[in-house]
Amino acid sequence: MSHLFDLLATDGRARAGVFHTLHGSVPTPVFMPVGTQGTVKAVSPRDLRSLGATIILANAYHLYLRPGDALIARLGGLHKFMGWDGPILTDSGGYQVFSLAQRRRIDADGVTFRSHIDGSEHRFTPEKVVAIQENLGADIITCLDECAPPLDYDYNVQALARTHAWAKRCRIAHTRRDQALFGIVQGGVFPDLREQSARFLVGLGFDGYAIGGLSVGETKAQMHGVLELLDRLLPTERPRYLMGVGTPEDLVECVARGVDMFDCVLPTRLARNGGALTRTGRLNLRNARFADDPAPLERGCTCYTCTHFSRAYLRHLTTANEILGHHLLTLHNLHLMLTIACELREAIVEGRFQAYREAFWRRMSNDQMTNDK
Amino acid sequence: MSHLFDLLATDGRARAGVFHTLHGSVPTPVFMPVGTQGTVKAVSPRDLRSLGATIILANAYHLYLRPGDALIARLGGLHKFMGWDGPILTDSGGYQVFSLAQRRRIDADGVTFRSHIDGSEHRFTPEKVVAIQENLGADIITCLDECAPPLDYDYNVQALARTHAWAKRCRIAHTRRDQALFGIVQGGVFPDLREQSARFLVGLGFDGYAIGGLSVGETKAQMHGVLELLDRLLPTERPRYLMGVGTPEDLVECVARGVDMFDCVLPTRLARNGGALTRTGRLNLRNARFADDPAPLERGCTCYTCTHFSRAYLRHLTTANEILGHHLLTLHNLHLMLTIACELREAIVEGRFQAYREAFWRRMSNDQMTNDK
Repeated sequence: MSHLFDLLATDGRARAGVFHTLHGSVPTPVFMPVGTQGTVKAVSPRDLRSLGATIILANAYHLYLRPGDALIARLGGLHKFMGWDGPILTDSGGYQVFSLAQRRRIDADGVTFRSHIDGSEHRFTPEKVVAIQENLGADIITCLDECAPPLDYDYNVQALARTHAWAKRCRIAHTRRDQALFGIVQGGVFPDLREQSARFLVGLGFDGYAIGGLSVGETKAQMHGVLELLDRLLPTERPRYLMGVGTPEDLVECVARGVDMFDCVLPTRLARNGGALTRTGRLNLRNARFADDPAPLERGCTCYTCTHFSRAYLRHLTTANEILGHHLLTLHNLHLMLTIACELREAIVEGRFQAYREAFWRRMSNDQMTNDK
Repeated sequence: MSHLFDLLATDGRARAGVFHTLHGSVPTPVFMPVGTQGTVKAVSPRDLRSLGATIILANAYHLYLRPGDALIARLGGLHKFMGWDGPILTDSGGYQVFSLAQRRRIDADGVTFRSHIDGSEHRFTPEKVVAIQENLGADIITCLDECAPPLDYDYNVQALARTHAWAKRCRIAHTRRDQALFGIVQGGVFPDLREQSARFLVGLGFDGYAIGGLSVGETKAQMHGVLELLDRLLPTERPRYLMGVGTPEDLVECVARGVDMFDCVLPTRLARNGGALTRTGRLNLRNARFADDPAPLERGCTCYTCTHFSRAYLRHLTTANEILGHHLLTLHNLHLMLTIACELREAIVEGRFQAYREAFWRRMSNDQMTNDK
């Protein structure tokens, strides 16, 4: 597949582009809400549309186990199943399988694991993971990879060999021409391994490059170092997707280092624990100081939650464990991430990314000094 | 207050009217979604509006305990607090307090109880319950009553004496002219007690009459008998509100016996347990037979859930315990109850209530025979 991605503008290393799929175009930089089990938790597809989400994530491992990728295929594919007609990216499930720790065995050919739901035994190979994702029918699918602890060099050497062999097999196994296939660069925090991984995958040639194995224990400086290295090694005409990252701050700093696509469970998971993201830090709605606070979560925010409800009400919903609390906090947190991605894009297109970045950090530090939250 | 309620049409004993409040008018018959803790569980105020809800319920006992009625008053009242600008009715909390069983002591003056949240001791008197509801600021408030077991005559005799004394005190204590005050008729399944209660409360004069103590253990025939008796005793120019009832079938049969207003947790509670109401019975989405069922919950239903999602997807959300499942089932169940109330009203206005009622029951029995579900 060609012409999937158009790079429209750059500002320093920051990039603005558009990724084309049969279910619509995705302006980048983009934040992708995570819909692990075929639903972005606590919000509906119409909510996602009204938030301005352009692409969402789903997880092949979870959907393979429940309700099953074959069942979803029989029912017309994941878009129809979950009522989302926009673009979808599926994570291969490699990360989830390797997170099972004691419940999986890796060999050169694949990985055998036990379901976190019922303990039943299953096996993922590169071919199987592609078949699952072809059944699901997402617009962007990803290779099976092994996500190693980022600071363990020897482990990363071995894992990388498997990840590369599997990437090659995934590329061969992939038959659906309406799906883009992304390779996943691994190699922990080690520049030589990351370089080796990038060169190998670029040599194979993918529609886009995911960057895996970050935000799992390394420092921000280490993560930024890897991104700066990869920005020089990955082709400019393909999108770069930083997996599992991140916060508003991460969006700004990783876009500054050439990343185009992000996903993270933080906005949705934090919401279900009574947490709100703001441009100046996080609020914990369980905190008693919000009990009679008539202010919105964040002044000036235009989301449904902030334009209709007070911190006091959201705290009440949180302490009473009401589903509406999860819903309203999720709306706000996703709105913030999606809005920041839009603002980053506008700033890049207008050549004022650095000014935006500086203003972003100035606001955060000012607010922390005045303790406005 | 006068001219709160206009009776617009009758058809047999069935009534169509409109109840006026400062936050809008409520066409009757009406089903009121229950928002116990200041939120109709799993749906937002904008969802309620799009469903066509015209009035919702909240609970004085729950909101008094958490977050506190004084706090809600400081923040501008319950409408503002929960972001619902339509009419609200508050239940006095009598039912909840008497449900505490071993955790409450009743005397002639009121009731002392322990919080279900933290065990702290509290006391409700008629005056206190009115003050709480004046703080909350609902459009319709209710008297403190004692909800006795419906089949225990002696208990009902004693409880009724307290309920009547308390109704008198509530009427005296009530000062807010922008709130309607409803008396609550009690007396279990016993015609002499129900008649005594209706005559006493009508003698005091209220803006409307709630019918309490039903749907808590008696038969449908006993409930219907009480409603037929009260239809003759209650003034035609005041609304009648049957508390805590009911199902689609109950709506049809109780409207047939002169009831105007209903509330019930069934549609919302059932939804959170994976249950869907339909015009022909209930569906349990946990049932494996829905696993690959591409049909909507109910054919022809125009709700968001039925027009966008399959039973298979809703079953998946239910078995995966996803919040979106609770949300989508709640939308459907409330849509059905609100739609049936609208249809009943139209049928009454157009003089074809009996035909509607017969068609309703014919569809239910046909469908059960063909086992379409």
